Amino acid sequence: MNIGLIGLGKMGYNLAMNLLDHKYSVTAFDVNVSAVDKIKKEGANGAYSIAELVETLPSPKVIWVMVPAGEITTGVIKELKELLSAGDTIIEGGNSHYKDSKQRAKELGEKGIHFLDVGTSGGTSGARNGACMMIGGNKEIFQSIERLFKDLCVDNGYMFAGESGSGHFLKMVHNGVEYGMMQAIAEGFELLQKSEYNFDNESVARVWNNGSVIRSWLMELTENAFSKDPNLEGIKGVMHSSGEGKWTVETALELQAAIPVTALSLMMRYRSLEEDTFAGKVVASLRNEFGGHSVENA
Amino acid sequence: MNIGLIGLGKMGYNLAMNLLDHKYSVTAFDVNVSAVDKIKKEGANGAYSIAELVETLPSPKVIWVMVPAGEITTGVIKELKELLSAGDTIIEGGNSHYKDSKQRAKELGEKGIHFLDVGTSGGTSGARNGACMMIGGNKEIFQSIERLFKDLCVDNGYMFAGESGSGHFLKMVHNGVEYGMMQAIAEGFELLQKSEYNFDNESVARVWNNGSVIRSWLMELTENAFSKDPNLEGIKGVMHSSGEGKWTVETALELQAAIPVTALSLMMRYRSLEEDTFAGKVVASLRNEFGGHSVENA
Repeated sequence: MNIGLIGLGKMGYNLAMNLLDHKYSVTAFDVNVSAVDKIKKEGANGAYSIAELVETLPSPKVIWVMVPAGEITTGVIKELKELLSAGDTIIEGGNSHYKDSKQRAKELGEKGIHFLDVGTSGGTSGARNGACMMIGGNKEIFQSIERLFKDLCVDNGYMFAGESGSGHFLKMVHNGVEYGMMQAIAEGFELLQKSEYNFDNESVARVWNNGSVIRSWLMELTENAFSKDPNLEGIKGVMHSSGEGKWTVETALELQAAIPVTALSLMMRYRSLEEDTFAGKVVASLRNEFGGHSVENA
Repeated sequence: MNIGLIGLGKMGYNLAMNLLDHKYSVTAFDVNVSAVDKIKKEGANGAYSIAELVETLPSPKVIWVMVPAGEITTGVIKELKELLSAGDTIIEGGNSHYKDSKQRAKELGEKGIHFLDVGTSGGTSGARNGACMMIGGNKEIFQSIERLFKDLCVDNGYMFAGESGSGHFLKMVHNGVEYGMMQAIAEGFELLQKSEYNFDNESVARVWNNGSVIRSWLMELTENAFSKDPNLEGIKGVMHSSGEGKWTVETALELQAAIPVTALSLMMRYRSLEEDTFAGKVVASLRNEFGGHSVENA
């Protein structure tokens, strides 16, 4: 089977390698020419423009788009819409907002181009060795290329989720759950670090990974992090985020769903980005106003 | 090796079976005579009082206490203190508060009786087939019977945690993490259930268990629960708790540690126990007071 792949970043490159392992004929494009040259050496066909990539592929064409969500994905899909024909399929594997995916499926559908939105989890090692994929779109189109997902994912690691957008919706919620689980794990170690005991964090994470109720891949990653820096002294507790947690909370607001722990996990990330907060100043000044409690000067 | 076991409840009984599998000579007591009779048929020696159990065991005696935390554990240990001698060891495997364990170690130590506090995770299946144990107390005493923990736990599933109380402290924090992780998972499915899509919960849990970042034993249990009741229509969302989550939050207050997601997970459990809340009535009446917003009458 021939697959066109657009995007050779951390996820796309590993996905290309995974496809090549499974004997797919891969034609790959990236704006970064050296990434294209590199994947050619691994056995892929290189394309140096999206037009060249589309031209090269036999019809019906199947093109996997694995580029950053937002404008870049929008641009790529716009260009593909011009170049592709009815019966071709775009698989969009990035972290797009599910509403964008719904809209894209609709617009492409008007020209007869199929669109599957695929939420991908498992990180770069998953993309390379076996990922987890949640797929939204037309079920028959999914079934016609199901083999592809079976090959790229771990056993039982892909799911046809439902109508267009559902793949990215599931991935978004997956990331929301991830925020909460990470914060829960982190708060546990926060307590251990402040306790009267002198716990070895790596050993704690290891014992919790073997036979305990909270064993999990995230706890394994925690163990791994502590193995490199036992008290994480080399890094700051600044917690960035890349969008899906925020979208999860926004979606909860739209649906009037109470997901306070997910929302608070997101807010704690925002809190970590600031050394001091204006809210903190307001509370300190109010304590001073009503009770004469001392404030710390800036 | 001879082990005295006090308590043949869900955890104790499975632990006895696990000990027997590993060819320990087990002498077991429970206030429930039929539980003693039952474990005798499995190959254990039965005792029908704590005094009989202590008498039967060769010295130095090693006695595993696996009874409900609180008054029952206190009572059992008080009785054992009278009956045991210097050099004997009590292993306390229940969900005791770490401060109680510290105090017990101190009091028993005055008589030369060793005390190990053991936090046990993995549920009943873990107790039966391989548990996770966090052990606090004197390191030499731990080392002298380390084989016992190696036999009862999964590989890498036990840890000498530190001084007295540290085993139960770790177990307490483990349970706090568990609260947060469970609430995070639950909020994800709350969103899916309220979404525009018609997700199959069991399939979602399964795909999240295979290759995703949030794969975990708790997600496997979620998959299992949905396999029996796809939308959990047979049960109410009432979330009871058994103490360790509360202790975790109390400990955070003592240590002035910010663990908001853990605390909120606990509060959401409390909220679930009430059909309506007084706080809700207050907010509703205030909206009515200042804005004339309608209230719903009781």
